[in-house]
Amino acid sequence: MITLTGCSSGNTDISEEIISLEKAALEKWNRGDIYGYLDLYAEDIVYFDPMIDKRMDGLQKIKEYYESWEGEINVTECEMIDPKVQAVKDMAVLTFNLRSVEGDSLYQWNCTEVYRKDRGKWLIIQTHWSYVKPNIK
Amino acid sequence: MITLTGCSSGNTDISEEIISLEKAALEKWNRGDIYGYLDLYAEDIVYFDPMIDKRMDGLQKIKEYYESWEGEINVTECEMIDPKVQAVKDMAVLTFNLRSVEGDSLYQWNCTEVYRKDRGKWLIIQTHWSYVKPNIK
Repeated sequence: MITLTGCSSGNTDISEEIISLEKAALEKWNRGDIYGYLDLYAEDIVYFDPMIDKRMDGLQKIKEYYESWEGEINVTECEMIDPKVQAVKDMAVLTFNLRSVEGDSLYQWNCTEVYRKDRGKWLIIQTHWSYVKPNIK
Repeated sequence: MITLTGCSSGNTDISEEIISLEKAALEKWNRGDIYGYLDLYAEDIVYFDPMIDKRMDGLQKIKEYYESWEGEINVTECEMIDPKVQAVKDMAVLTFNLRSVEGDSLYQWNCTEVYRKDRGKWLIIQTHWSYVKPNIK
C-alpha cells in the first residue's frame, strides 16, 4: 500500500492518469513483481539508478537487469511524496520523492519518470532514481 | 571546454539544439557563472541534486540556492558522455553521464534534463543530477 502526500499538478486529467500508472507499477514492484514497470517501459527507454556505472539504454537491457530482482523485493511501507506532473499533449514528466521501508532499512529516493504517449498509451521513456543526500565515503 | 563523446538521438535537429543549449549553460557553470542555467530554467522548473533533502520547486527557490555558488565553481575538465535526446514536438528529454574534474576531485554524474518549448524557446522544466554509484556510509 502506497501512501500519497501533497499531490499537485497543472493538467489534472493527465496528472491523475500518470500518477495512477506509476502507483500501480510501484505497488507491484514493492511485492517483487518486476512486470508492472517492465510493461510500462517503451522500447527506447533510458534508465539511471545509483547501482549502475552508466545510463542503461533499451528495454531488453533493463529487463535483464530487473530479472535478477524478481521476487527479491519486499517493501513493507512506501510513501510517494508530492508527485508532480508537467505535461504537454503527448509527453509528461512525473517527479516525486519516495520513502520506502524494507526490512530494517529506510530508503529515501528522488525520482524522475518521463512518459510519452505512443498510439494512445502512456509509456515510460526515461527513469531516474537517485538517493536523497547519499553520504559519500 | 567540454568534450562530447558518443552523441546519439532520434530527431537530429531538436537533439542538436538541445545539446547545444545544455553545453553552453554547462560551460558557463564550470567557470562559476550560474546564469547560463538560470536563464534556461522555466518558472515552473523542478530540481533534484544529491545535496538537497527534497525536490526543489520553482525558479525563485533555485535561483536563491544557486546564488551561494556564484563564482565558487572552477571545473577544469568536463566530459559529457553519450548525450541522448528523446523528443516530441514541444517537449524533449536529454540524458547523459558527465565526468568533471575540480581541483583534485573527479565527479561522475547522471543527468536528466527535461526541456519544454515555450513560445518558440526551449526551456528546462526538470533537472535531476545524481552521483554515479555513490558509496553509502
